[in-house]
Order: sequence, then C-alpha cells, then structure tokens
Amino acid sequence: MEETFVPFRGIKNDFKARIVCYKQDWTSGIRAGARILAPTTYIFFASAIPVISFGEQLERSTDGTLTAVQTLASTALCGIIHSIIGGQPLLILGVAEPTVLMYTFMYNFAKDREDLGHKLFLPWTGWVCVWTALLLFLLAVLGACSIINRFTRLTGELFGLLIAMLFMQQAIKGLVEEFGVPKTQTEGTNQIALQPSWLFGNGMFALVLSFGLLFTGLGSRKARSWRYGTGWLRGFIADYGVPLMILVWTAVSYIPVNEVPRGVPRRLFSPNPWSPGAYSNWTVVKEMLNVPLMYIIGAFIPATMIAVLYYFDHSVASQLAQQKEFNLRKPSSYHYDLLLLGFLTLLCGLIGIPPSNGVIPQSPMHTKSLATLKHQILRHKLVSTARTSMEKNMNLSQLYESMKEAYDVMQTPLVPQMPPTLGLKELKESTVALASSHGYIDAPVDEIVFDVNKDVDDLLPVEVKEQRLSNLLQASMVAACVAAMPLLKKIPTSVLWGYFAFMAIESLPGNQFWERILYLFTAPSRRYKLLEEHHATFVETVPLKAIALFTLFQTAYLLLCFGITWIPIAGVLFPLLIMLLVPVRQYFLPHFFKGAHLQELDAAAYEEAPAIAFNMSFDDPINHANISGGEILDEIITRSRGEIRRTQSSKTSSSTTTPIGGDIRPSNSPQVSETILSPRVTALRGESSLGSNGRS
Amino acid sequence: MEETFVPFRGIKNDFKARIVCYKQDWTSGIRAGARILAPTTYIFFASAIPVISFGEQLERSTDGTLTAVQTLASTALCGIIHSIIGGQPLLILGVAEPTVLMYTFMYNFAKDREDLGHKLFLPWTGWVCVWTALLLFLLAVLGACSIINRFTRLTGELFGLLIAMLFMQQAIKGLVEEFGVPKTQTEGTNQIALQPSWLFGNGMFALVLSFGLLFTGLGSRKARSWRYGTGWLRGFIADYGVPLMILVWTAVSYIPVNEVPRGVPRRLFSPNPWSPGAYSNWTVVKEMLNVPLMYIIGAFIPATMIAVLYYFDHSVASQLAQQKEFNLRKPSSYHYDLLLLGFLTLLCGLIGIPPSNGVIPQSPMHTKSLATLKHQILRHKLVSTARTSMEKNMNLSQLYESMKEAYDVMQTPLVPQMPPTLGLKELKESTVALASSHGYIDAPVDEIVFDVNKDVDDLLPVEVKEQRLSNLLQASMVAACVAAMPLLKKIPTSVLWGYFAFMAIESLPGNQFWERILYLFTAPSRRYKLLEEHHATFVETVPLKAIALFTLFQTAYLLLCFGITWIPIAGVLFPLLIMLLVPVRQYFLPHFFKGAHLQELDAAAYEEAPAIAFNMSFDDPINHANISGGEILDEIITRSRGEIRRTQSSKTSSSTTTPIGGDIRPSNSPQVSETILSPRVTALRGESSLGSNGRS
Repeated sequence: MEETFVPFRGIKNDFKARIVCYKQDWTSGIRAGARILAPTTYIFFASAIPVISFGEQLERSTDGTLTAVQTLASTALCGIIHSIIGGQPLLILGVAEPTVLMYTFMYNFAKDREDLGHKLFLPWTGWVCVWTALLLFLLAVLGACSIINRFTRLTGELFGLLIAMLFMQQAIKGLVEEFGVPKTQTEGTNQIALQPSWLFGNGMFALVLSFGLLFTGLGSRKARSWRYGTGWLRGFIADYGVPLMILVWTAVSYIPVNEVPRGVPRRLFSPNPWSPGAYSNWTVVKEMLNVPLMYIIGAFIPATMIAVLYYFDHSVASQLAQQKEFNLRKPSSYHYDLLLLGFLTLLCGLIGIPPSNGVIPQSPMHTKSLATLKHQILRHKLVSTARTSMEKNMNLSQLYESMKEAYDVMQTPLVPQMPPTLGLKELKESTVALASSHGYIDAPVDEIVFDVNKDVDDLLPVEVKEQRLSNLLQASMVAACVAAMPLLKKIPTSVLWGYFAFMAIESLPGNQFWERILYLFTAPSRRYKLLEEHHATFVETVPLKAIALFTLFQTAYLLLCFGITWIPIAGVLFPLLIMLLVPVRQYFLPHFFKGAHLQELDAAAYEEAPAIAFNMSFDDPINHANISGGEILDEIITRSRGEIRRTQSSKTSSSTTTPIGGDIRPSNSPQVSETILSPRVTALRGESSLGSNGRS
Repeated sequence: MEETFVPFRGIKNDFKARIVCYKQDWTSGIRAGARILAPTTYIFFASAIPVISFGEQLERSTDGTLTAVQTLASTALCGIIHSIIGGQPLLILGVAEPTVLMYTFMYNFAKDREDLGHKLFLPWTGWVCVWTALLLFLLAVLGACSIINRFTRLTGELFGLLIAMLFMQQAIKGLVEEFGVPKTQTEGTNQIALQPSWLFGNGMFALVLSFGLLFTGLGSRKARSWRYGTGWLRGFIADYGVPLMILVWTAVSYIPVNEVPRGVPRRLFSPNPWSPGAYSNWTVVKEMLNVPLMYIIGAFIPATMIAVLYYFDHSVASQLAQQKEFNLRKPSSYHYDLLLLGFLTLLCGLIGIPPSNGVIPQSPMHTKSLATLKHQILRHKLVSTARTSMEKNMNLSQLYESMKEAYDVMQTPLVPQMPPTLGLKELKESTVALASSHGYIDAPVDEIVFDVNKDVDDLLPVEVKEQRLSNLLQASMVAACVAAMPLLKKIPTSVLWGYFAFMAIESLPGNQFWERILYLFTAPSRRYKLLEEHHATFVETVPLKAIALFTLFQTAYLLLCFGITWIPIAGVLFPLLIMLLVPVRQYFLPHFFKGAHLQELDAAAYEEAPAIAFNMSFDDPINHANISGGEILDEIITRSRGEIRRTQSSKTSSSTTTPIGGDIRPSNSPQVSETILSPRVTALRGESSLGSNGRS
C-alpha cells in the first residue's frame, strides 16, 4: 500500500478496486450453495456469544441502560451494512471488549453529574459518537491507513494475544463468580439457589459444563483427522462441532431436575426485545439537544480515545483477516472501511446503541474458515475432473492439463492487470518431471500412479472463498438472535465461559509470538519438533539468544498492556500503548537486533526489498504420505500463518534507516506473494520449485 | 510347557527352574537401586487402591464383618509371601473383584441360617478356604496348569476386557452414587451434607475430581513425549504421575472450605486397624470347630467354584504377565505357584481374611513397568559405553563390539542350556553393513554417524527387569497402608472412581481384541493407520469379513460373561463360562474360520508347528527417526503386545485335528521366542534380519 496522505486518494483507490469485484463477491458466495453455512454458523457463534456476554457486562455497569439487546442490535446492524456496502467483506464487525470498557468509564463519569446523569447518558454518548465519527472521517480522508504496513506482525500478534488473555480472563472470572451470589439476579431465580449449598453445587456444575464445552469443542475441531465414523460425519462435526457442543452441553445442563431449584445452573439473562422499556433508547436523537453545551464539547475527549482505538482495532482486525499467507486475490480496503466505520459509529450513536468495529479473533477466524470452504470446493471439482480423465485413459501429463483447465475455470478473473494464477502449474511440472523419471509419463494413469483423493490435496494451494454472503448471513443471524432471546436464555452462563476459553485457545495456533513462547519452554532436545510441525524457519536462522530476547521484550510489553487494562480509568489508554509499539519497532528495536534476525522474526514491509518471485526447496526428510486431506488442510490453515523462509534482502540493514522510502506498494498493482504449501507436500513431490501467486 | 499329568512333575520342574534364578532375582533387583521405586510405586497404587475400594464394598455387603483392613492385610500378607517364596515374581497378588462377589454370596447365605449366622460366618469361610486349598493342591499336584497353552489370546484378552468393563462399571456406579445418600455413613459426616443441595454439590464435585484424575493421570503417562520441561522432570512425571495426581486431586478436594460441611466430598472410610474390634476376626481358627458338621461339608460347594476361579484367574494373570512379546528370560512357574496359592488360601481362611490371588490388570502392568525400567538401565549403560568408545576414536565396528560386550555383561547367565543372547548382534551387523556401504566403516565414529541418544534406543530389544524386589516392596507398602489408614482416609472416593476408570483405560492398549473392535469402527480410508501404529499384521493377512466375524463372536461372548456377573447367585459361575471358551476355541471355532486366519488372530500353541528361528523383514516406509527414546519405549511397550507376523506353518490345518499331539514344549528346554523391535527401528536400519532370543 502506498504511503500517501493526499486527501481522498486512499478511499478512492479502495473503492475503485473493490467495485470491480463487487458482483463476483455475491455470485461466488451464492454458487458455494449450502456449504457456505459451515463458516457462517461458525462465525455467527464466535460473534454472537461474546456480544451477548458483553451485553450482560454492560448491563451490570450501566445499571441496565444498555443490555445484550443493544449490543446484539449494533452488531447485527453494523454487520449487515458492512457486508453489503463495506470494502473488505472478510472483516467481521461487532461490539468489542474495549468498547464495553469505554462505555463503562463514560457511564461512571456521567451518572454523578447533576446536569447529565443516568437520563442524559445515552444522548451524551450520542455526541461522543458524533465526534468519533468526525475524527474517523478525518483519518480516513487523510489516508491514515497507509501506515498500516508499519503495524508489523509484532504489533498484530501482541494485540491478538492480549485479546486472547482478556477472553481467558473473562472465562476464569466468570467461572469463579459462579460460586458466588450473582450480581444481577434473573427474574424467577429461586432464592433457595442462593443458599451456600446451592452456590457450591452451581459452581461445581459450572466447572463441569464449561470444561465439558472447552474439551469437546477443541476436540470437535479436529474431527477431520479422527479415525472413526464416515468422512461425511467427520466433516460435519469439524464444521459444526462448536454450535453442536453448545447445544449438547445446554441439554446436559437440563439433566438434573430433581429438587434442583431454578437458577442452578445460571443461564443467560437479558430482557426480551419486546418487553416494555427495551425501546426507550432508540429515540435518543431527540434528546441530544438537551445535553448542556459544555458536555457536548467535552465529549471530544473520550471521542479521541475511541477514534484511536477504532482506527487501530479496525485496521489490525482487517490486517489479520488478510494475512498474506492466505493468498487473497481480492484487494484490501482500509481507507474506505474506516470511512464507513465513521458512518456506522454515527448511526449507532444517534440511535443510542454502542458502536461496533472490526473484531479479533473473529475476523481471522472467518478467513480461516473460508479457506477451509474454498479448499473443499476446489477439491471436489478437481477430484471429479481427475476421475473423468482417468476414465478416458489419459496419461499423467494430460491429466494435469485437464485439472489445470478445471482449476483455471474456478479462478475468478478479477483485476485485469493481475497475472494469471500459477498455482497448479509449477506443481504439475515438477510432478510430471518426477513421474517421467519413473517412466510413467506416457502410460495411462491409474489409481496407483495418481491417488485421486490424496494427490489432489497435495496440489491445492491455500485459497480463500472471498465473498460477502457469509458475512451478511452471520450478521442476519445475529439480528435473528434479538428475536430469539427466549431461546438464547436457555444457554447456561458456564457454557459461555467455556466458550470464551475455547475462543482464546483457538486463536493461539499460528500466532508466532505464542509459538516462540512455547519454543523457549521446549526442552532443547525437542526443539527440532517445532521446526518440523510449524515450519518456523526462524528457529534455523536466528540464534536462540536473539529469539529469547525478542520474545522476552514482547512478553514484557504484553504484560504491561494487560496490566493497564486493570487500571479503572487509565485502562482506556491501552490502545495508545499498543500503537506506541509501531515507532518502538521501527526506531528502537533495530538498535538491539540484527536486521536479518529482525526480518525473520518480524518482517516489516519498510525493511524489505521489493518481493520477487523466488524458489523454495524443502528437503524435509519426513514422508507423511499417509496423512489425508482434511488433516493436511487443518495444518495448512494454521501453519500458513507461520513463517516462510524468504530470500534475505541485502538492503535490509540499509533500509531500516530510511523507513519511509522502503517498500512502496501501489495498491491495485500486481504484487507478488507466496504460494504456500505445506513442506510435507513438497517433500512428497521431491524438490520442486514453488511458483508465485499474483495478488493485488 | 509339557502337557503331562504325572503327579508332582510340574511342581518339581517349576521349582528346579526357578531355584536357579533365585539369587539373581534378588541381586538384580538390588542392583537397580532407587530406580526400582518407579515400578514399585506404580504397582503399589494399582494394587492398593482397588483393594481398599473392594474392602469398602465388602464392608457394605457383610454388615461390617470384613473391611478394607482385612482386604489390605490379605493383599500384603500374600504379596510378601509370594514375592519371597513364590515362583513367578512378576505376578501380583491381591484381593480381587470375583473374591468379593464370592464372599458377598456366602455372607447372604450364611446370615439367614440360625445355626451359622453373622457370628459363625468367618469360621465357616475358614472351612471354605480349607476345601479350596485342598482342591488347589490337587490341581497343582496333578499338573492342571499344563493345559495353560490352551488358554489362548482369545481367552486371556476376553478376560482382560471383562475385568476392564467391571472396573469401568465400578467407576460409573461410584460416580452415580456420589449424587445419592451414601449407604454407609462415615463417622463425623455432617447431617447437613445429606441435604439434596449438598448431595448435588457433592456429585458435581465428584465429577470434577474423578475426571480431573482420569485426564491428568492418562496425560502424565505420556509425559516422556512431552515437549516441555527437562528430560528428568518428564521421566519423573511419567513414572510417578499417577500417585502424584492422586495427591494433587486430594489436595484440590480440600480447597473448598467455606461453609462446606464435613462429608463433601466423601472420603474413604475404614476403621483404623487399632480401633476396638478390628482384631476380632484374627482368631476365627478357634471357632471353626463350632461350625455344624453339615455346613463344614456343604462348604465344599462354594469351594469348588472358588478353586475353579482361582485356578483360572491366577494362571491367566500369570500368563498375561509373561506374554512372549516381553522376551522374558526366566522360566514360568504355573504349577508351583498354584500350590503356593493353595497354602495362602488356607492361611487366609484360618485367620479370617479373604484370600488373594493373581490379579489383572496389575500383573501385566507390573511387567510393562519393569520393561520400562530395564530399558532405562540398559540404555544408560550403553550410552556411556558408546560415549567412551567414541572418545577413544573407535570406528563403528569397534564401537558396536564394545557395546555388545557391555550388553552381554548385563545379560544374566541363567539356565546353562540357554543359547547366548543374540539381541544386539544382528542389529550390529546390519547397521555396520549399512554404514560400510556409506563408507563410514573405518572412520572414527562421531556424533553425526552415531547419534548416541537416538541410536542406542534403536538397538535395544524389549527386555524386562525380572526380579523379586519390586513385588516385595509393593506388598510391604500395602502392609504399611494398614497403618497409614488415617492418611488414606483423606483420599476422596471420587478420586478413587477416577482411578478405576484410569485402570480400565490403561489396560486397553495392546489388547488385540480391543484393537480389532476399534478397527471395525475405523473408517475404511483410515484403516491403514492401525497397521502403521500397532503393527497389526492380521489386517493384511486376514480378510475383513473373517476379522469382523471373529470379533463379533468374541464381543457377544464378552457381553454374555458381563451379563452373567449381574445375576445375583449364578454370577459366581462366570469363571466357568470363560473356561468354556477353551474347548470352544479348540473344537468349535476351526469349523468357522480358516486355520491360517485363526492362527493370525489367535495363535494357539497346539495348532503350531514347533517354532523355529526365522527372519522377519519389515519394509515400513515410514521414517520416524526423530522420535526420541522415551516415546519409542512407550510404543514398544504397548505395541509389543500386538501382533508379530510369523512364518505360516504348513501344518496348521492338519494339526487342528490332533490338538493334543501338536506342539510339545518341554519346560526348561530351550525354546525359541522372538526378539521384538519396533518396525520403525528396523526401517531405520534398512532391511535387517532379526535374531531370536532364547527363553525357556
């Protein structure tokens, strides 16, 4: 992305680039058919459950002014709008933890003011949102997002881990609270349930339910590699296991009936959207003029904080959803999306609901699940092509030719200047070369030479089904949640805490920061395993001492950020602390680490020479030929966020001194990215040169 | 073993064979030093915990006549005597579930008789034990154990799985009971703990504790392959993880203190051995003459059942502890051990405690844990030898020569007619051949050519540290338990249920019957994995239909046996049902299965041609070079109970018609067994011929 601050240029470029794909965004989603429901449901739960829980949290801290109905409404509204007119449809919007913290702080401030108080709190937040929106417009127009390249892996992964820690903290806090008297009491809770004996029983039951959900949820994600059951069942469990497990553990929570009072276990609590008073806040816009002028102006202070937070959070969520390992083919849209976020914030403020922004870890989870979807679709097509070709007694070369054609047909012709997709071609060539050396080349292909199910998996690069439908559907399902409140209330809160822990753990694999922490705790004799499984090349190229120092610095910084969120008022400053990492990384860290090492651990675009196509050769001696498709995919999806060895640029050290003049990436122009294939796949084919995949 | 029924011959042969090893049985154990404590503690817990729980069960069913003090005393007494003067020191003795069932039945009979009643119950069981002992003497003297060869894998594994099912049943029953009012109430239990609310809390807490123990216990056994922590710590956790986890979860059970009444969670209950009345039964011998003559004679009926049960149970436990895959070097002692069991039963009967017999799964668990110990000792020695040799700049051939010497020194010269151990030799030869083809042979060896830590593991065959010390120590620790009752009482019963489930699950791997059940549920596309991991050759050689039919038959038979244990009085007949399997296997199954298939699935000695030394070649393409020692061992230990491909005897089908005239195995004469090495090891070395290991 070009670092330009010419007004409107970024927005215009983004808009132009995305409008080209707009129609395809829909047709592609619709063509996927019912399969789209797997990522949709997965993201819907990942999106709705925290939002409901944040709603409960808000209700407690705002004396019932805002509830889960409002957080769900905001998430649904913003999600639907963004999925339709937003730039990057991979980005998932929702009311996030930092927003909740902000609103809590503002409520604590407002409730004690005589001329503001409980009554004018929402109108006042309306003004905060107005200011925030203005600031976001300004940032978008001036192209603030062009410095997104400076948000390196260091920053993004630290933020990701911080969110994981906040989720885990909420899970633990929630579980501990299950042993105590609840702060808000659900209507209908039997007072008997508040006896110490039932509190103890409730807490223990909560432990059973939450750990049950956590373990079965984590287990179900690996269902594709299970040994038992049919492939269909395994696929179904892997796709829908988590919602399924929420159903199962909710059902389990209804097993104890004898003499167990209502309120054990505790369940979600939120007013029904049709109960009186639930709409009172939808008309705050009328009252906004009643807010004293001083407070209207004063609203600018929290607004700047929220604007900084949203600018950062939205951009990083978007960035993590578009990591280059995903090999996305459609362009990014940072500037335009920030502008839209401004409008959404304004809208939410005017109708008195907390605004939504791009969320972590749901956004990268969304992309990952779409990569799984795309893989399944490609696989299905290629397997049937291969089968047909083999029936026609084609030889290996012809077989690949026909598969290549089928593959190309499935590639979306997007931006005209994009180079043709090369994915299958190089692989084909190397395979054919290998086969011909064995004398297979001219013989008709049979199942022995080409094992359809296995070999197709090996051919497929990581690709993502980029479309808008899953985002629109999940947001609509969140909207349906508002109506389905009576059903949602059946979910025990403890299942929710288990789900929080699940989300935290699910977000860890692929986070290089996390993997480095694990690496440092790994016994020296077992370190090679990390290399084997995660393909973490930094292990080979960076000395242990540098890795340790870098990780230690990052951990200390993470703990600092985490610690700050505990401070009641200063806590809202934590986004500033994370943004501070950007200059720290750029100007401070190069003094302590060698350029080459820094490049391995935290590749920064401004320190790179323009990327060029390159050859990679893996000589991994491990032959995992017997791993089947689903598993390879599971690993590609996580591994693909790991490290890829890149040719070291000789400019590395010099360019650190001229960061602005570093890599210029004009948006919408062809830019070379890497096709990622798991090393085992390459090992299968012998040494092969991997091609590059165009992406703008 | 010779099928001879000449009186006393079997006992004499056993005695002669074992007396030769007697001194070495002790010196070898003592030389192992502190390491012997790992298998000792492991078996102590596996032995003591069920015995305590059976004691509780007995207490309930005999109105307090017999308690955990008596079951522990019997286990300790018999264990100590057996470890000192018993034949096979690998065999673990203890009060087993069938004994408890038998005593319950006898108590239910006795308590309602006017002239017997509660008071004369123990003296009457004294007479039962007298008769049982006489029958056992008769069986031992007449050589009944020589038909042990007919107890094929089919019978042993079915019995093993039945015991696992009984353990699991006890675990589930125990957990369910935690939700109800306890049948026996511990002194000091607060009546508040019996309120429905606390019963609920107690049950939920029990779920947490038992699943906690189960999962952490299972996890800790795999600690050797963990990636984190030092090798020492990992080894320690793998060795002592289970007792450690019992401590941890007992500690956890003390965390809730506020307002939680005594009795939540429930803990073990047993009178202290020094409490009044605990000794009342030690003098039953004086009262035995008060039993009416009719009942003295009538005692013969339960005695026959117990004799059949003990004959079978003791022999099968002994057989499972000496499976040929363990490559034992010291002889078996079925006849002599049965004679000793007779004496022990007599002794227990006279002092009014329930008798002990050989137990499953503890006995095979004992051998397995000693194999781990032996591996560690051998490994330690060979690694240091290799290091010394490499410092002396020896070449590869010399290196192996010196290692071979060190290895031979560690082999026990036992029975004179035993062939010299060949274990290392063939491996050396094949490795040297491989190395010489690479031109390494004359160069001094360095760490690259010979990676000491890894390669030594690959060289080691499965061997067992056969000695008496671990058995004596564990039995003495059980004796100490009687004194440590106040400490044992701190263990929550729910931890115990978790431990029962742990034992059931731990006994499954290596049970080919279980693996076949899993195999049938495995998706067709993943079946090759079983072959890969368990080296189950039957998968390759027996058609699926035959495997399915055989497994189905076995499962139906298992369910029949399990069902019979539920019938109150006829339940005691279940040993007869299992013994019935022997003729069923011999005369009935050959009509339904091809001889070759039957031989693969359930090799019977009487269907075999005399075993000869043979070559095995594995061409497993999987290269697992990076798996380190501990893990290889874990797998060898379990895998070694799996299948080994053997050269098919052409006599198979003809010999089935003349079963008695089949294989004659004179005891104490050289008999050829297989050295087992994991296929991966062989794969590492290329195709190599494995030698045979002598064992009588």
